[in-house]
Amino acid sequence: MASISPAPLLKDELDIVIPTIRNLDFLEMWRPFFQPYHLIIVQDGDPSKTIKVPQGFDYELYNRNDINRILGPKASCISFKDSACRCFGYMVSKKKYIYTIDDDCFVAKDPSGNDINALEQHINNLLSPSTPFFFNTLYDPYRAGADFVRGYPFSLREGVPTAVSHGLWLNIPDYDAPTQLVKPLERNTRYVDAVMSIPKGTLFPMCGMNLAFNRELIGSAMYFGLMGDGQPIGRYDDMWAGWCTKVICDHLGWGVKTGLPYIWHSKASNPFVNLKKEYKGIYWQEELIPFFQSVNLPKDCTSVQKCYTELAKQVKEKLGKVDDYFNKLADAMVTWIEAWDELNPSGASKSAALPNDASK
Amino acid sequence: MASISPAPLLKDELDIVIPTIRNLDFLEMWRPFFQPYHLIIVQDGDPSKTIKVPQGFDYELYNRNDINRILGPKASCISFKDSACRCFGYMVSKKKYIYTIDDDCFVAKDPSGNDINALEQHINNLLSPSTPFFFNTLYDPYRAGADFVRGYPFSLREGVPTAVSHGLWLNIPDYDAPTQLVKPLERNTRYVDAVMSIPKGTLFPMCGMNLAFNRELIGSAMYFGLMGDGQPIGRYDDMWAGWCTKVICDHLGWGVKTGLPYIWHSKASNPFVNLKKEYKGIYWQEELIPFFQSVNLPKDCTSVQKCYTELAKQVKEKLGKVDDYFNKLADAMVTWIEAWDELNPSGASKSAALPNDASK
Repeated sequence: MASISPAPLLKDELDIVIPTIRNLDFLEMWRPFFQPYHLIIVQDGDPSKTIKVPQGFDYELYNRNDINRILGPKASCISFKDSACRCFGYMVSKKKYIYTIDDDCFVAKDPSGNDINALEQHINNLLSPSTPFFFNTLYDPYRAGADFVRGYPFSLREGVPTAVSHGLWLNIPDYDAPTQLVKPLERNTRYVDAVMSIPKGTLFPMCGMNLAFNRELIGSAMYFGLMGDGQPIGRYDDMWAGWCTKVICDHLGWGVKTGLPYIWHSKASNPFVNLKKEYKGIYWQEELIPFFQSVNLPKDCTSVQKCYTELAKQVKEKLGKVDDYFNKLADAMVTWIEAWDELNPSGASKSAALPNDASK
Repeated sequence: MASISPAPLLKDELDIVIPTIRNLDFLEMWRPFFQPYHLIIVQDGDPSKTIKVPQGFDYELYNRNDINRILGPKASCISFKDSACRCFGYMVSKKKYIYTIDDDCFVAKDPSGNDINALEQHINNLLSPSTPFFFNTLYDPYRAGADFVRGYPFSLREGVPTAVSHGLWLNIPDYDAPTQLVKPLERNTRYVDAVMSIPKGTLFPMCGMNLAFNRELIGSAMYFGLMGDGQPIGRYDDMWAGWCTKVICDHLGWGVKTGLPYIWHSKASNPFVNLKKEYKGIYWQEELIPFFQSVNLPKDCTSVQKCYTELAKQVKEKLGKVDDYFNKLADAMVTWIEAWDELNPSGASKSAALPNDASK
């Protein structure tokens, strides 16, 4: 797990998406793991600035001018001056899988001191099934040395396709601004050697720092919303995507995993700046969670596109009254889906047979 | 965590319940951790046999004759020739907390080589809140060095009372007979350094080998069913208790944790014998899980007793047609509650205000 794989897994089926405003020196550390893969770099902020990418990497780079040119008026759905812009990279990719990572994330070490190949672990997570319908107390039952425990129904042991693999962070934990302020010195030093399926019906805070997903399955719902420039909120882009994708995965019978792999998160962002970005989200979230917990997608929503369009409708209906921002967000969700379908015309996204065994 | 606490936690508020058919030599290894506590030993099988308990332990011991004498005709609800008899110990205890452990479980070591004080970890699990309404990706948010991550709703950070702490096993994993047969050599060597709340609405396979609970909260639902002598099934006692208590905890807004602590499970039971005990359960379970996933307890079930009586009614209605065994089991559930109330007359069990924030 911690060694460099001789033949890189899914070399031609996975893009690495990196949002950035700076030179990508951090790639040097990732070279042994990332160099075989294609990178999609989404340059945020001033498009006249040149981003330096270390030699030897295969990449395409999009700045704001490119986004505007490619999407035209629909570019309005892509955030500016916020790492939420990364989702543009998901849209222009032509691959089956995406791994996205922040440029302040470095290679972490496992407890034996070996470099962790985060990408390989994500790929393993995505290629093995999930078990969202019943909890396995020994964690991932498909891992070497583990299995389903006594009392786990045999009919559920085949599992379901995995749509999302959410990785974690050593060193700087992903805390909100209030927690950062209260615990400025807290560091995550605990390596928890587990991957698990997040049960159906359970929401979680999905962080975009170290995240992989099956683009073919769930890509069209992996929209990071309206954040940053001109918006009343930031730092909820990945959360929004996480809640939307989780309810859609639950509906379509796909799995979401969390746990390994860890990356080394090097630097805490400024808690005062974060507080300004977050404070409305912290308040709104108290309405968002009950909304997502009670979202009911009709049976005829058999594709991610249909689910996402329905979700946008319900966001407008039920959250529009919380703040007008959610009306704009709902419109942007529709624009996103239209743009996605334009750039991915062959119906690249999969529809799922609704599972029978999954009681809501 | 791995050291011996100078003042044993909850010394006068916790009983250790051990079902056994043999001399309790295994207690020698647990002496530094268990000696301050009171033991309740439930002797299974031939009551004329004398069970030797190492010197220095404070205990009471009940054999089948004692159970019959104390419960009279209601003794029929207590299993014979099966470790399910342990629940008699829960009933006669007068303490707030119970820890129950099998006599083939020994002290495990943590990755640093220190003895794990399993009881102390269980107590910590029970004394700190649970978070069943939203998943925290850094696991137990109340643990030193951890917290709630960005995107975790602040209104849910107080948590809810913890009713159950489910511990795990190194060495021999708790596999069913088919898995034992297929993987006779598999050993659990992975120490996962985490405790987590099992989300509301999610069922899990609760193993009785290394289990603690708040008896005052959930004791009256911790019935291990009809197993062993004269019954068509075995090895589903703890599973049954786990499913019943989980749906009741979900309904009343209490938490169930799993993960640390580990014990060292020394010996695999005979898979051929186990297969005979389990095979009906393996089949029936495919009906039991959908039943428990869809159990709906009415709002006026505001105490565990009311919930459990209602559950017994639904078991009869919906599972009676699977096999007549479930009619007998439903009757035994009612007998258990009657016996519990007789032995615990002061309404020892707590009723809960139904949580408002807990959408089903």
